[in-house]
This record gives sequence, structure tokens and C-alpha cells, in this order.
Amino acid sequence: MAEKESILASLRASVCAQELQQNRTYHKIDREKLEDLLKQKFVYDQSFSIYGGVQGFYDYGPTGCAIKAHLLSAWRQFFVLEEQLLEVDCSILTPECVLKASGHLDRFTDYMVRDVKSGECFRADHLVKAALESRLGSKGTTDSEKEEIGGILSQLDNFGADELNDLITRFGITSPTTKNPLTPPQKFNLMFATCIGPTGQHQGYLRPETAQGIFVNFQRLLQFNQGRLPFGAAQIGTAFRNEISPRAGLIRVREFTMAEIEYFVDPNSKSHPKFAMYADLKLPLLSACDQMDGKSVREVTLKDAVAQGIIANETLAYFMARIFLFLYMVGIKPDRCRFRQHMRNEMAHYACDCWDAECLTTYGWIECVGCADRSCYDLTQHNKATGARLVAEKPLSEPKTIHKLQCVPDKGKFGKAFRSEAVLVIKVLESFSSEQILKMRDELVSSGRCAVPVNDSIFEITSDMVTIKAEEIRVHVEEVVPSVIEPSFGIGRIMYAILEQNFCTRQNDEQRTFLSLPPIIAPYKCSVLPLSSHPDFVPFVRHISEQLTRVGISHRVDESGGSIGRRYARTDQIAIPYAITVDFDTVNQKPPSATLRERDTMKQIRVPIGDLPDLVSDLANGIVSWSDALANYPIFEQQEVSK
Amino acid sequence: MAEKESILASLRASVCAQELQQNRTYHKIDREKLEDLLKQKFVYDQSFSIYGGVQGFYDYGPTGCAIKAHLLSAWRQFFVLEEQLLEVDCSILTPECVLKASGHLDRFTDYMVRDVKSGECFRADHLVKAALESRLGSKGTTDSEKEEIGGILSQLDNFGADELNDLITRFGITSPTTKNPLTPPQKFNLMFATCIGPTGQHQGYLRPETAQGIFVNFQRLLQFNQGRLPFGAAQIGTAFRNEISPRAGLIRVREFTMAEIEYFVDPNSKSHPKFAMYADLKLPLLSACDQMDGKSVREVTLKDAVAQGIIANETLAYFMARIFLFLYMVGIKPDRCRFRQHMRNEMAHYACDCWDAECLTTYGWIECVGCADRSCYDLTQHNKATGARLVAEKPLSEPKTIHKLQCVPDKGKFGKAFRSEAVLVIKVLESFSSEQILKMRDELVSSGRCAVPVNDSIFEITSDMVTIKAEEIRVHVEEVVPSVIEPSFGIGRIMYAILEQNFCTRQNDEQRTFLSLPPIIAPYKCSVLPLSSHPDFVPFVRHISEQLTRVGISHRVDESGGSIGRRYARTDQIAIPYAITVDFDTVNQKPPSATLRERDTMKQIRVPIGDLPDLVSDLANGIVSWSDALANYPIFEQQEVSK
Repeated sequence: MAEKESILASLRASVCAQELQQNRTYHKIDREKLEDLLKQKFVYDQSFSIYGGVQGFYDYGPTGCAIKAHLLSAWRQFFVLEEQLLEVDCSILTPECVLKASGHLDRFTDYMVRDVKSGECFRADHLVKAALESRLGSKGTTDSEKEEIGGILSQLDNFGADELNDLITRFGITSPTTKNPLTPPQKFNLMFATCIGPTGQHQGYLRPETAQGIFVNFQRLLQFNQGRLPFGAAQIGTAFRNEISPRAGLIRVREFTMAEIEYFVDPNSKSHPKFAMYADLKLPLLSACDQMDGKSVREVTLKDAVAQGIIANETLAYFMARIFLFLYMVGIKPDRCRFRQHMRNEMAHYACDCWDAECLTTYGWIECVGCADRSCYDLTQHNKATGARLVAEKPLSEPKTIHKLQCVPDKGKFGKAFRSEAVLVIKVLESFSSEQILKMRDELVSSGRCAVPVNDSIFEITSDMVTIKAEEIRVHVEEVVPSVIEPSFGIGRIMYAILEQNFCTRQNDEQRTFLSLPPIIAPYKCSVLPLSSHPDFVPFVRHISEQLTRVGISHRVDESGGSIGRRYARTDQIAIPYAITVDFDTVNQKPPSATLRERDTMKQIRVPIGDLPDLVSDLANGIVSWSDALANYPIFEQQEVSK
Repeated sequence: MAEKESILASLRASVCAQELQQNRTYHKIDREKLEDLLKQKFVYDQSFSIYGGVQGFYDYGPTGCAIKAHLLSAWRQFFVLEEQLLEVDCSILTPECVLKASGHLDRFTDYMVRDVKSGECFRADHLVKAALESRLGSKGTTDSEKEEIGGILSQLDNFGADELNDLITRFGITSPTTKNPLTPPQKFNLMFATCIGPTGQHQGYLRPETAQGIFVNFQRLLQFNQGRLPFGAAQIGTAFRNEISPRAGLIRVREFTMAEIEYFVDPNSKSHPKFAMYADLKLPLLSACDQMDGKSVREVTLKDAVAQGIIANETLAYFMARIFLFLYMVGIKPDRCRFRQHMRNEMAHYACDCWDAECLTTYGWIECVGCADRSCYDLTQHNKATGARLVAEKPLSEPKTIHKLQCVPDKGKFGKAFRSEAVLVIKVLESFSSEQILKMRDELVSSGRCAVPVNDSIFEITSDMVTIKAEEIRVHVEEVVPSVIEPSFGIGRIMYAILEQNFCTRQNDEQRTFLSLPPIIAPYKCSVLPLSSHPDFVPFVRHISEQLTRVGISHRVDESGGSIGRRYARTDQIAIPYAITVDFDTVNQKPPSATLRERDTMKQIRVPIGDLPDLVSDLANGIVSWSDALANYPIFEQQEVSK
């Protein structure tokens, strides 16, 4: 089996490389030109650069900030509003105990190696991967070596410090910048640590994901939903990861915005009431099996995917459909988007299944949205750590009688024995299952005492401290620990993928670049441009601007000098889909009219200025299409004045 | 003078106490009842409470999160869109060098004292203030003692560790919780520290305000605005302060959302083009002088306030008007809002004038928005630290000839002498004014060398390293370091003030509480309620819900059991302004209609369901008033079914 896996993995590696190559040809982007544009128009740029900057931090300028705000507002409309999710906004600073329970303190780590001379740090797995991939592509490598390397690559996510060190030694891997030798790999926790309170009494961390804020509020949210499953909670917020070596612009950063949904379902029935809506939708899937078998992406209907067990359940499939439609709506090209299932060895510590929505960029296929089944991992962990009852009640089809053991603590004796911790110990005892109580009773009978673990401590109970009662109860509900389906959106990565996939150059002028963003996320919906700085234009420009504000259309007035052609180029560069130009006809004709120009086609129509606000609003909101507008108003043919 | 100040300060203290008393009577709020409601409806609650919680951190639940999102979206519309501000979104984690230059590293501190036995920490000034105020109110205190205490209170913000310690000793101040003695006051920096990067190479802090992100991006923003003044930048984001003893719910917390505007103006002309719009608006002002003179709030028109020098300039006054109107729009009562000018001794280290918009709550008058003139403090500081040219060019009315000295460095020699730091030193030299160059030339002539301070280091230049040239230049522009007017909004505090000021009980039923929020910030605009769980209602409820979503009206369907009266009470409690009820007439009559109920009046009208989406949308957006709706549709008189 292991042998087969390694052969197939090497096949898979070469298929991926071919795919990337093909797609790169298919949609060629000059990344440097894009980066120039992003910098020049302050879409985003490195933070603190007058101080030399710090790697992995970016500031969004007016253009980027508006795109991001529209992206988040589209997300809120599409998910929170349409799915009736319970949105929360939780603290970023998180005490250690929470992240200990969630597993992040122990397992949210990467292996790091250092250049022995310069001290520069690298992520060990990235370094090994890059070195092996370069060997895989090199002409001197034999087929049997390739096969072996393929096997190693497919296992890489499983490797610990020793295995990584062996590979570094064996393949003679050195620092990519200095060629100096490297230290052995060490575990490095990716969370930023700080102390909370004036005496530094609480160790805290900047949250590495927004999900935990939802889990620790589970009871309040369940109550808000009147105790019923399923329900979803959502959070948009900042999270932090102290990446060892940030790179690739917005793709691997240390501070980023996430939008996460935690959808709580009955673990025994993960069907979704609205699944039928999308049963016939085809999604581009690359399952774990297909990856192992060296196959490429398949278009599969969700109905078939669930029936064939490719996607584990309806809820997971439903959210994958919603993710795909959302990405499409905000500008991701369907042919440059796919869902790749995680291999068993690359799954996060909390996940039992995971599909990534990946978008194709010049950096390759990058993960933009994860859609994981976290099962009951988190709620169980927080229950263990706190004793809090993190369960939902499910009505039984018919009531049943159960025999239940109950452990009744003598609170006075507990107080005396455990003081401030007594409440917690009692809470834990009260949450004991009948099996646990039975075991405890046996111990108390045989030795008179019993050890109860709570968090990291052991509390010794003696038989005089508790009474154990047996009861027969008629129950109408059963308790379940909900499973959690988690769609998790990396907003910066999605934004970068959108920018790349919508970066264009004019057919007749390679130097003239523009961003063809859909109006829904364009930073401003409209430009307002006087043809020149003639004072007669001023009142019209002001009037149009006020009317646009009144209907809530964000816009930018560009009264700066420069030819109108140059100003069109400028508004195209910051992705503004429509431009209104006030010219001499506006001033001289009754009723006054102005021209309206669309960014992608560069066509113009002549519109009475009274019609403009509603027309632009309808165009921007997709109520009227540009071809309808072209049909309803006279085309304005005057040549665009050249630069 | 000092004597007069102290007498007046004691007067002022008693006037404030009287005012608060009067206002409390005028609008009596049972804060405990409000807190119950906020907790029960999960508007917000303490973070991590299943782990015991950490002071000063709050999570917003679905209701609070929606209110906050609407508040921010109203802010964006009112300020960013209507004032055409350049919105940015900058990093939270900030390297030390930036906060060293901004003065936060040295001066963003409070004095802390500790209980010598329990170790509990307190803010020294808060403790002294509370102790002295209680003495001021006590019957045994003589008039001359009161006068003295008043004097101390007015000086408190000026006091250092020694003075605070003297007061603690002299007045026998002890720990308010244990009555144990206290340690002497120590400086405590309020910023949360962390290390950035795998080797901890960069000391960093969580930003204590969002403003610095804007200042370090000044050049990019100026360029985005085509080099012209005035312009405003804005940022909404999270900031952090490690408060010594957080308290009073959302009012003093460790993690909070701010919305800040930095409006850059010509330091020689702080007029504002739109000032005339608000010249006749009266604002409730409490100037520093009036506070010293023991006077109370005066209603003054902005025209008079600027003319009389009460408010320093038009731009400051313009933004105060905008702040007042914004607060009014989102639910702050004008008679419980005032602008209080900072006394000289309470100003932050960067401000030269500051007015706080304060809202009256059961905690007294609390600062919700600060409106400060930061002058050129920040840009100057960042220029000193980095040498970056943080200036704007201003066209001269007519060109003038100036004699300019220029310092031309021999780059090779600088490189040899200062290596990696050479670039920075050259940058600093090139930014030298003619006066600075003249001084340097004198030193070079007399001693052959000259010391140049850059950041915290001194670099020694010798006369062979630079050439000093004198030129005559014809200039059309002059350089200015812009002044900054900063309106800074504490979103959590504003939200708390709104909740308190809009907390109501029904006239005939004290137990029935509700929140009378304006629709613009209500968490949902509408409830949809089937009269009972009768299956015939389901398709109507679903249809109405879909139609509301289509017009972008956020709403909540409440299909849970319970009488309709009880469900009305529930929707009132979470401030939903309108409720649609589907009843048997909806099912039986053609065309189907439903009832629409308004929260504050509890009146109902009967509306065809086809009209509902647009009607609710128009009501929620203030296009149609409730009295218009009452006039246009038949009143529905049926008794509200009691609980």
C-alpha cells in the first residue's frame, strides 16, 4: 500500500505541474505589472514602510479598503442574511486556557530551521518541499529517484523533527539565500503571545482563528436559537499567525481577516433542508482518492458526489455550493477555481474531513476557503476543560425510560476540601455519565477514595463526600454533542485571487492596465468627471455627486487636470465600472445630459442627468444590464480624447 | 491665580454633582434591568466566561453584533462617503520604533498601586479621585477642606508618582476591597507587548489607537489625493489598552473598536469649505474657561463659537457639528449630549486642543467621541525618526525667489563610514532646512566635523564628506507640515450610551422592557411571526421572508411556540422596530394581507403582503414615517393577545 501511494504521489506531482503550466499559458498575467498597479493606486502596500517595514504585514489603502469592505458586505448578505446565521464579534486576545483546550498551544506549530551563520529562519517543510520539487524537475534525476521523491513529498505533512532533519542531511539542503548549513528543525508555535493585566497574571495569545470565540459562546448561541439544532454562527474578524517566513504578498501574512461559519448539526443526521436547491449543480472536485490515483479535477453534480460518498454529507456539500457561488459572484472565474480534498495527513488537528476551495494564481493553486467537518472535537475539548454542558437536546420520536445514576456531592465537604476549586470539581462530577459514576462507585467501595481529574489537576474524593443515587427516568429528549461544519474564508487571499483573475490590459495598448472587478466589489461604483476645469462644470458635478450620495452610490469626483482620456485610464485602473462625464452639452442643452461610460467595453451613452442616479444604481446592483442601457439611451460616439 | 483656580474647581465639582443628580431624576434607568436584558438577549457578554472570564473583554452576540455593524455602516455612509474620506485598513501589530516616535512608548502610561497583601492593582489617580470625591460629599468636611480638595482634584491629571504618593499617605487611602495598605505608585505602560518573527527579533505592540496607521501612510494618501490639501483619511478598527482595572462594562475595556478620522489641513488656514452649512447650528458647549468659572453648559451657534474663539477654528467646529448630528441620528438624545473642552492638564501628549462629545449615562457623563487638534505633532515626530518627507506643497499666490542651501553628500564616503545606516543619514541630511545646513557649515568650518543625530544615534560627519551649495531658486509652492484635526469615536461607548438612553419600560407594565433604537441601527428591521404553529402559515411566512431578503431588509422569523403577545415582547426587547404577523385572514382573504406593528406605539395596520417589502424598507430607511403608514392603511384594532 505504502509503495502504491508513493508511486501515485509522484504521478500526482507531475500532473499538478502540467496543469499549472497549461493554465498559466491559458491566462497569462504579468505579476510585476499588477504589483505596480496595486502599489501605485495604493490598493495595499507593506505596513510601516517609512520605518523599513516588517514582513507579513500589509495596509489597505482607500481602493483596497473599499474593495475589502464590499467583499465583506457581500459575504454578510450572502451568508449571514440569506442563511439566517447568528453573527458574533468576539475578543481577539484569548487566554491560554482556551487555546490549551482547543489544541493550539500544543499543536499549532511549524518546524523551523535556522541559517547557522546569519540566523535567518525558514519553515523546514517548505524548504524540503522546494528542494525536492526542484530535484523532481531536474533532468539528471532518474525515474526511480523521482518515484522515491514523490513518495516523500506525499508524506511530508506527517514528518516530525527527526525525519525532516534526515531529509535535510540526506539531500544536502542548505539556506536558499546564503547556502550556509542549517540547524536541526525545532518546533515553533505560530501564536503571538502577550500578558494580560498589570501584573502579567494572565498569559494570552492573539487568536489564530476566529472559530474559538464561537465555540466558547455555544451555550448562549444555542439559547438564542431557542435550543434548536441545526443553526449556524458566523464571525468576521482579524486573526494572527507568527509565520516563520512570510512571503507571496497577501497569501502568507501574519495578520489577516477571516470570515468563518460554524454550522452546528445533529451528528447523526447531517442532511440539509436546502440541499435540493443545489443537487444538480456541478462542482469541480479533486478528491483525495483522485489525487492518490493521479487523476485530475472532475465536474460532479452534488447529488452524485454525496450519493457516491465523494463528499461526506449534504451539509458539507451545501456549503461547498454556496462557497462556489459566492466566489463566482465576487469575481473568481469558475474555470480557475476547484475544490481539493485534504489528504489524511494534511488535515488540521481538529478536522475529520476538509475540502479547500482553491483559486488559480501565478503562485499556483492557492487555498482561499476551507470547508471542514470539525465533528464534535472543539465542543468536547472545551467541555473537558471546563465541565460546561456543551450539548443540544434532541426530541426523541417516542419517550423512553432510562436508568440513570446520579452523583450528589456534599457541597460543604467539597468546599472544605477544595476551596475555590470546589465549584469546578462539582461541575465536572455532575456532568459524569452513568458509566463514569459506576466506575467511581466501584473505586469508592473498594478503596474508600477515588481520583477525579479536572483540567491538569487530580482531586481526591472520599466516599463520605458523595451520595450515589439510582433513578428511573422517563425522557423525551436525548442529549447530543453537535458536529460542526466550518466554511472558513481567508479574505486577503480571496481578494488577491480576484485582483489577479480580473487584471487586464487593453487589446491595443499593453501598457494600459485595468481591473475588471464586478460592480458588487468595485471600490467606487462611479466616477464623476468634468471634461475640463471650466468653472461652468462645477455646479453640475456637485449636483450629480449629491444625487449619487442620496441613492447610496459611492463615487469619486476627479476634477484634477489632465486629459479626459488620462482620467478614464485612471478610473479604469481602480476598477470603477462607470464614469459620468460633464461636458459643454451638459451646460448648454435642456434638459441637461451627461455621458455614461462603462469600463470593460469603453462604450458611452448620453443620459439626462435626472436619470443618472437611478440608472447607475440599477447597473451597479445588477438590476439593469449594460446592454439594456445601450439599447435605451443614445450611444455617444465621440472619440475618447487620447492622452 | 492658583488660588482662584482651586476655589473655582471646587465650585465646578459641586455643579457637576448637581447636574448629574438632576439628570438622573429626569431620566431614571434601572441599570440592573438593562443589564439583565443585554445578557439574556446576548447583546454582549463577558468573553470566555465558561473559563471564568477575563476582565475587560466582551463578546457581542447576534443582536449586539448587528447593532454594531449597522452603527459602523451608518458611520461609513455619514463620514467616509459624504465627506469623501480616504478609508484605510492598517495593521494592528505595530513595531516598537513607530510607537517610540509617536510618544506612546514613553508616555502612554498610567500610575498603578498595588494592595501590599493581595497584590490587586488599581489606577492610582482613579483611587485618589474616588477617595477625595467621597470626602467632598461627606458632612464632616469643612468648607476650607472642600476648597483645598477641589484644588487638588483640578490638578490631578498633572500629578506624578511622588505627588500621588503624598496624597495616598496624607489622606490615608487604602485598597477599596481589602483596606490593606498600598505600594507607592509606579508607571505602567498600557500597551500589550509581543514579539514578531520566529527569533523574536522585532518588539511589537498591539496598537493603542488606529491613528498611527494613517500617519505612517501619509505620503501614499497625499499622493492618492493628487498632492492636495485638505483631505481626510479614516480608519475603523480594533485597538487595545491593557487597563489596570477595567470596569463599568463596555466603558473601560481592554479591546475595543474605534473609528477615527485624521483630517489634514493647511496649518495657516483651518477654515472649512462646508462650515457655512452649520454656522447657525447651536451646540451644547462646556468650554475649559466655563469649567474654571464654574458655569454650566451653554448653547452656542458655531458661528459665534468660532468668532469668539471658544472653538479654535472652522474645521474643528465643522467636525463637532457632524459628530453631534451623527450621534443624534444613531439614537443619542440631544439633551443628554454635550461637548466638553479638555482642561490644559488633561490633554493627551499629542493634542493642542480637544473637545469631547460626552453622553449622559448612569455612570455619569462619559466621553464617547474626542475631537482633537493634534497640530503637526505626529507627522513631525515620524519625520524626525525616519527622515521621510511628510509635508504637502501649497501653491503660492505669486512665485518668489529664495536663497537655498543644499547639502550634497559624497555617497561613497557615507557608505564607507556608516555602512547600512548611510542611506538613512543621507535622507536626514537631505531633509535639512537652510538654517540647519548653515549651522552645520559653521561647525564644519570651525572644527572640521559635525554631529548629526538620527533616531537615537549620533553620526559624525567630516568636512570632506559633504559639499554645501548655495542656490537661488524661483519657487511656486511652499512646503507645509499639515495640521491634523482628529475626530475619534469609541464605538463600544457610543453603543452603550445608545442602549441606556433608549432603554424603556411599558407604561402599564414595569416588567416589560424594550429598546427603542432608531431603525437605522436596529439589529433587524423586521420580525416575521406566524400567529401560531398552524401549517397553513408556513408558505406565507417563507414567501414574506424571501421577499424581505430580496429588498435587503434584515429580519428574524420567530416560529417558536408561545403566545403572539409574548413573541411581540421578545421582538421589542431586541429593538426590532416592525413586526409582520401572518394570521388566519392572511390565509383566507384575497389578496392576502398581514398585520404590521410598530414597536414604540404598538399600533398595527393591515397591509396586502405584496406591499410589505417596500413599505417596511421605506419605513426602515426613513422615507415613509409611521404616521403616514397609519394614514394609508386600515388600522388593525384587534387586541394584542395577552401573555
